[in-house]
Amino acid sequence: MNEMEMHMNIAILGLGTVGSGACEAVKSAIDLEVTRILVRRPKPEYADLQTEDIDDILNDPNIDLVAECIGGIHPALEYVLGAMEHGKHVVTANKALVSAHFEELENCARKNGVQFRFTPSAGGGIPWLYNLQRAGRCDTIEEVHGIVNGTCNYILDLMHTKGLDFAEVLRDAQELGYAESDPGADIEGWDTQRKCVISANLAFRTVIPEDSVPVLGIHHILAEDIAFFNENGLTCRLLMNASLQGDAVSAYVEPTLLTSAALESGVGTNYNMVSLTGKNVGPLSFYGQGAGKMPTGTSLVHDIIDIKDGISFSPSASTGPAPSKVDNTKTSHPYYFRIAAGASFPEEPIASEQVRNSYRYITTKPMTVSDAHALASRYENAFVAGYKE
Amino acid sequence: MNEMEMHMNIAILGLGTVGSGACEAVKSAIDLEVTRILVRRPKPEYADLQTEDIDDILNDPNIDLVAECIGGIHPALEYVLGAMEHGKHVVTANKALVSAHFEELENCARKNGVQFRFTPSAGGGIPWLYNLQRAGRCDTIEEVHGIVNGTCNYILDLMHTKGLDFAEVLRDAQELGYAESDPGADIEGWDTQRKCVISANLAFRTVIPEDSVPVLGIHHILAEDIAFFNENGLTCRLLMNASLQGDAVSAYVEPTLLTSAALESGVGTNYNMVSLTGKNVGPLSFYGQGAGKMPTGTSLVHDIIDIKDGISFSPSASTGPAPSKVDNTKTSHPYYFRIAAGASFPEEPIASEQVRNSYRYITTKPMTVSDAHALASRYENAFVAGYKE
Repeated sequence: MNEMEMHMNIAILGLGTVGSGACEAVKSAIDLEVTRILVRRPKPEYADLQTEDIDDILNDPNIDLVAECIGGIHPALEYVLGAMEHGKHVVTANKALVSAHFEELENCARKNGVQFRFTPSAGGGIPWLYNLQRAGRCDTIEEVHGIVNGTCNYILDLMHTKGLDFAEVLRDAQELGYAESDPGADIEGWDTQRKCVISANLAFRTVIPEDSVPVLGIHHILAEDIAFFNENGLTCRLLMNASLQGDAVSAYVEPTLLTSAALESGVGTNYNMVSLTGKNVGPLSFYGQGAGKMPTGTSLVHDIIDIKDGISFSPSASTGPAPSKVDNTKTSHPYYFRIAAGASFPEEPIASEQVRNSYRYITTKPMTVSDAHALASRYENAFVAGYKE
Repeated sequence: MNEMEMHMNIAILGLGTVGSGACEAVKSAIDLEVTRILVRRPKPEYADLQTEDIDDILNDPNIDLVAECIGGIHPALEYVLGAMEHGKHVVTANKALVSAHFEELENCARKNGVQFRFTPSAGGGIPWLYNLQRAGRCDTIEEVHGIVNGTCNYILDLMHTKGLDFAEVLRDAQELGYAESDPGADIEGWDTQRKCVISANLAFRTVIPEDSVPVLGIHHILAEDIAFFNENGLTCRLLMNASLQGDAVSAYVEPTLLTSAALESGVGTNYNMVSLTGKNVGPLSFYGQGAGKMPTGTSLVHDIIDIKDGISFSPSASTGPAPSKVDNTKTSHPYYFRIAAGASFPEEPIASEQVRNSYRYITTKPMTVSDAHALASRYENAFVAGYKE
């Protein structure tokens, strides 16, 4: 496959939400054809394209590109590496895979002279990662942040606007298909952590280990917390954050209290909004559907078209020294801690406090992210959020 | 110049805001070099690069690309056409030029086998037009809308938040450099009209004549209007709008009354936000600086890098029948008319009315855009705005 070739044959691995969306979106594109589909259980509507054997795809010299839509690490990793070793380009929406194996996947693509793209892995239908690397071509990306988990946003938005309990809204979200039956990865913030890692890697041309990004989730939030925020004109959203700090990167995930001046406070239901600040361009924000069959499938097909058209994509450190480590000791802002009325809290960081409904509602002085997350880990059922500066 | 060539020589026409921003942003890009600058008055800092004679650039076979930063129609049009006829790619931020001569410029580029790009001509630093055409590659763009004039947004935002008069804020904006000394093109909506034409042309792969897009400006807005909007929880923003209506396009520019649920109501000071709705991807919005030296200059350099890297861009009708005309008789919503207390107004469209401060504040039933704009043209100092459905 070279840049001038006009037709591209595609194999799709997995026919779940993203895979079936990509199958459908390909139909609106020119010169792309799905010629093989890997399925676990045969489906009558794709009888002539499907196989249960990955080798049928790896060993087919007519397949130019593999779209991985299985999800999870195994066997997705082996299939993706295998495809690249067989000279096939790869696109994926798999954030778990890209976040955990970024360097290995990048190296494999480079070694085999193929393209590896993953725009829908953070932001779903939003062309966030594509534009993030595009922006970095003649600018210095200073920070990225945003709402990248639609499940959490849906829950927080409905708690704010309808005054409902967490459990109630979660059930509602599950019925609507906005939340998984096992919602842990979303509500505990791990999904947002992965998208933070991928975004920071592209923004700062580095490789951050997942477990170096501290996470506070939304699973302990109560209607009482939301009532307190509403009274104070604040909106709570789960944000990823990453910024350049000298030769290190500050990166963390936490519920964040926003005033009405912040664009993110206007992001409703299950939508996402992701932002960068460039030294030249200033702030840029991107808003849209962060998940869903057609948005994510379409975003995957855009990556395929970019590869077919020979559009360059430079995710790795090529234009300067990459920051080498995560350091959250230089980023600070005030925090909100809602803990049990009887629980102890260090005196020094407290800026103000209310006690009511058997809870202490504490607003701290500015604390470093590392100190605040360490302190938060001492409380089992507390809800902790950062104030946006 | 072919896609594989690594180095690109650039001539910049004009060293105003955009031209000097582009000169600076080029320094952060790889393999780009400014080798000639067209100036009206020589400037000591570019002594060795500058010329006052366009032929020095057109006839220089070592120049691969011309970045037009003069603005206005003449002589920009002649220079740009000349450059393409001499086999040079062209990029421009010149909305007046692109809006008025879209077809001629596209045809000239195609005929001469060169690239013509104009991303900063609508949205400034926001990669709006690039992403609009990218989205259209495997999706049907159903509508576009947005805030594309920072001057108007700054004026409306400060009138809302500070309760100031139009004239006061305009003076303030002029002092800050957010408004021109002759602000007519901005406040009367003509700048927004041009960006609407360019966006609609790309979205719907058509060519819309400027004068077929009706415009209502913000120049007659009073502090009394803003007070009325604030009382009703509404925010006023100047929006461009264009949508597919069968085989026609509806396109218009008008001040628009938004509830707090609309993202655009959170767009403050001189920022821009532009949105598309794709059949597959759903709504996508892009937010950032719509003007200014470094944002716009950087956006122009991204267009240059895209050309250098051989990134495709298909603005013209290639994938389906293009809608052929503007028709605003099928788009309708309620309107706000603030007219003199003694002025007459047809009875039939009135939904509700207040009279105070010697003005009639009328909210209409849903009216077609064509009817409402025709009615608005009957009043000399009225302020008219559409309600966002």
